[in-house]
Amino acid sequence: MDPNTSGLVQRLAEAGQSHLLQFWKELGPEGQADLTLDLQGMDFQEINGFFNNAMKTSSSSKQEKMDARMEPVPREVLGSVTRDRECLKDWETEGLHCISQSKVAVLLLAGGQGTRLGVSYPKGMYDVGLPSHKTLFQIQAERILKLQQLAEQKHNTKCCIPWYIMTSGRTMGSTKDFFSRHNYFGLDKNNVIFFQQGMLPAMDYNGKIILESKGKLSMAPDGNGGLYRALGTQGIIDDMQRRELEFIHVYCVDNILVKVADPAFVGFCVQKGADCGAKVVEKTNPTEAVGVVCKVDGRYQVVEYSEITLATAEKRSADGRLMFNAGNVANHFFSFSFLRDIVQKHEPQLQHHVAQKKIPCVNAQGQLIKPDKPNGIKMEKFVFDIFQFAKTFVVYEVLREDEFSPLKNADTQDGKDTPTTARHALMSLHHRWVLNAGGHFIDENGRRVPAIPSLKDGTDLPIKCEISPLVSYGGEGLEELVKGRDFHPTLMIDEHGVHELVKNGV
Amino acid sequence: MDPNTSGLVQRLAEAGQSHLLQFWKELGPEGQADLTLDLQGMDFQEINGFFNNAMKTSSSSKQEKMDARMEPVPREVLGSVTRDRECLKDWETEGLHCISQSKVAVLLLAGGQGTRLGVSYPKGMYDVGLPSHKTLFQIQAERILKLQQLAEQKHNTKCCIPWYIMTSGRTMGSTKDFFSRHNYFGLDKNNVIFFQQGMLPAMDYNGKIILESKGKLSMAPDGNGGLYRALGTQGIIDDMQRRELEFIHVYCVDNILVKVADPAFVGFCVQKGADCGAKVVEKTNPTEAVGVVCKVDGRYQVVEYSEITLATAEKRSADGRLMFNAGNVANHFFSFSFLRDIVQKHEPQLQHHVAQKKIPCVNAQGQLIKPDKPNGIKMEKFVFDIFQFAKTFVVYEVLREDEFSPLKNADTQDGKDTPTTARHALMSLHHRWVLNAGGHFIDENGRRVPAIPSLKDGTDLPIKCEISPLVSYGGEGLEELVKGRDFHPTLMIDEHGVHELVKNGV
Repeated sequence: MDPNTSGLVQRLAEAGQSHLLQFWKELGPEGQADLTLDLQGMDFQEINGFFNNAMKTSSSSKQEKMDARMEPVPREVLGSVTRDRECLKDWETEGLHCISQSKVAVLLLAGGQGTRLGVSYPKGMYDVGLPSHKTLFQIQAERILKLQQLAEQKHNTKCCIPWYIMTSGRTMGSTKDFFSRHNYFGLDKNNVIFFQQGMLPAMDYNGKIILESKGKLSMAPDGNGGLYRALGTQGIIDDMQRRELEFIHVYCVDNILVKVADPAFVGFCVQKGADCGAKVVEKTNPTEAVGVVCKVDGRYQVVEYSEITLATAEKRSADGRLMFNAGNVANHFFSFSFLRDIVQKHEPQLQHHVAQKKIPCVNAQGQLIKPDKPNGIKMEKFVFDIFQFAKTFVVYEVLREDEFSPLKNADTQDGKDTPTTARHALMSLHHRWVLNAGGHFIDENGRRVPAIPSLKDGTDLPIKCEISPLVSYGGEGLEELVKGRDFHPTLMIDEHGVHELVKNGV
Repeated sequence: MDPNTSGLVQRLAEAGQSHLLQFWKELGPEGQADLTLDLQGMDFQEINGFFNNAMKTSSSSKQEKMDARMEPVPREVLGSVTRDRECLKDWETEGLHCISQSKVAVLLLAGGQGTRLGVSYPKGMYDVGLPSHKTLFQIQAERILKLQQLAEQKHNTKCCIPWYIMTSGRTMGSTKDFFSRHNYFGLDKNNVIFFQQGMLPAMDYNGKIILESKGKLSMAPDGNGGLYRALGTQGIIDDMQRRELEFIHVYCVDNILVKVADPAFVGFCVQKGADCGAKVVEKTNPTEAVGVVCKVDGRYQVVEYSEITLATAEKRSADGRLMFNAGNVANHFFSFSFLRDIVQKHEPQLQHHVAQKKIPCVNAQGQLIKPDKPNGIKMEKFVFDIFQFAKTFVVYEVLREDEFSPLKNADTQDGKDTPTTARHALMSLHHRWVLNAGGHFIDENGRRVPAIPSLKDGTDLPIKCEISPLVSYGGEGLEELVKGRDFHPTLMIDEHGVHELVKNGV
């Protein structure tokens, strides 16, 4: 097909993107057909508009001005597992009740690829090396199963927590295959709903779309905030409406400790009448690289760590805590009606953020270039960009050691957020569950192991202990299994019982 | 010399330690003379008494009973840099005034060897790889120099902060040599006073002293609490009295951020009329491996992390903080009269703690054994064992990121408390000093670097920035050097000026 015929040449010319056809004659029929197909689906005027808006916002030096406009989260919109302990049971009861009525869904953001982790498949398929070798997807699936069961038992009813999984063009196929191969980890496949976020081209600083090869555009997912557009275009909002869902818990795939549909979080948000809620962990060190939830010009948003000045990051309240200490962990609550309004009304107003990147590209001579400094931008929306539209926004503070350990990087020296830190975080949590349920661990000499492991050798090995989500969602129900008992690690507790895995397979 | 002659054989027999001579005939004259010399200096009855007392205390299962007896530090004895900010200036002024009157000394605990660090010389001689390649000893010496200077300038007087350095038999020679070779880093050598802590033999579980070779006892320093005995036996208390010192700041060599003779800490303790004070950092995670300052049966002490149950470690106050959150950082204030009373009255009452160890030894056949599990104990006193005797005990809470980064382990994967973490902690602090004094850092593209460094690659490299203690003790005095200026890292500020060290020596 000749690009002239389709009007493509003219459309590209009008949008200043004619360079995309510069290698046309070298492509061969198949390459030409592929490129034409890619280009035909794109709205260049819209993309140029995204670029212009994103660059305009990004170039105004926000940082200096931001400080005076930032206000911390007021205490009255904050719920805290450490400061409001007397309310926890109540919130959890509320949340479980909502779940039992099938009003609650979870929505997983899983469109990213494991680039930094060094794998070529979706992160959810990663095995961090637990004794069970469960993947992140399986752990999350089993938590959903267990939570359904807990709600059903308590309220003597059947219920369902639908699981919406947003993938991207690059992860959709392998994700669906993986779930299918594993029989949806015991979930009803009709309640696991996959959908796909959009892609956008990478652009150079002059707004020209970058070619990653002579016949192929450099494309990337449009950020986790691409969610809102995809909810509309993929018919997900309609599906939610058909299921009469009222509350949606949105989270990222990479947090091994994530409490999917956390009943206490859901119950807190519901009792507060919130349309939008953010789960946070306390930021305790001013220079910790975490975005903070706060108000800017009276509206809630996340200020990223790269946007904050040290003076503001170091500000403290009278109680000695950091003033801006609501560390974002990408764990959000939305009412369905809020989400519907976002999709139907506000989404087009959201501007893309600019991420400067080193983007492999072909130069005018057709040679592949791997730049050693940023040569262009990717455009992304963020999932928290919609906080500004909330009428009743709340914040729910939880303990990092109980709920947040993201998997981002491969295992390296001094690595943060690696398979090792994720594995240790989960085993440490389960170790604590056993101790708090009255169990004990003993070492090879029969001595009781202290609750806090020694770090004397710089090894920082936690007790090896893993409890299947099918046995316990959040530490409940373990007393009858462990109370008063002594265990040799590795301890495994799963639906088949309590096992001590002795080394060498003995 | 025949051991019979000296009565040694009988003394050993009476003490049940005759096995120490079992290889006597194989030793040869020189070996026999060395062993005799070692044995003659030892009081076996006293050592057996230490062993019996230590084992008795250690074998009673303390942990379970401890919980009910623990009480947190009351607010009224706590000073906090985050919660009492309005008092800080006042405390610092008080402390500087005491320093200007030469009433304040610092006392360094440097008897340990860098075994875990993997070096054969004293830790203070370690170079963590700063741009300046200064050792821990030099950094501390320069802080003392600068603090003297600040006090002198403020009060228009001459003053001196004597530096007492406790070494052990194993580190004394090399430590003194090192200071002498470096001309005491600019300090007056008469005000740097070395003394030596005692050594004790390692014992097996039956109370028999362990031989590390046929003619040599396995000896180890008697713990950092050996300080109090050494202060008496080595005439240090007398020296302090001669110098009319009133306040002593005691600290460990391994903390690269240590604020020696911290005027705010000293001033706080003085204003509170304290005879004993502990500097702490907030423990924020229940399972963090740090001892906590608290009351047990109404008396202050440090409960080590291995002694606490999880239930107690997880207890929280109404404000959401951990109830037992006063993390010990081995950084103490003592009034001279308190210290003198300890040495003269209380020291003999202090019991040794038992540390189970893998102790290399010779067996009955004279073969060298390297055990793979603990085969005996070392006996140690701890520097904080004397808190119980304080009449007015206070606690001073500081920020970990500003004041505590110990060097304990060699650089390894996921290492904690390594040369890398120490180096990064110091450079991160100095980076913040520059920002707070109005300076900025720019990257190789001329863009301003965000205050909080990105960790996107899992690299966690702070801005390379080092400020000599001779220029600033605690961040003061930098505005005139950096305000409004842009710097390329590596930035070095020392007594010769402000330098940007460009790569490749350009």
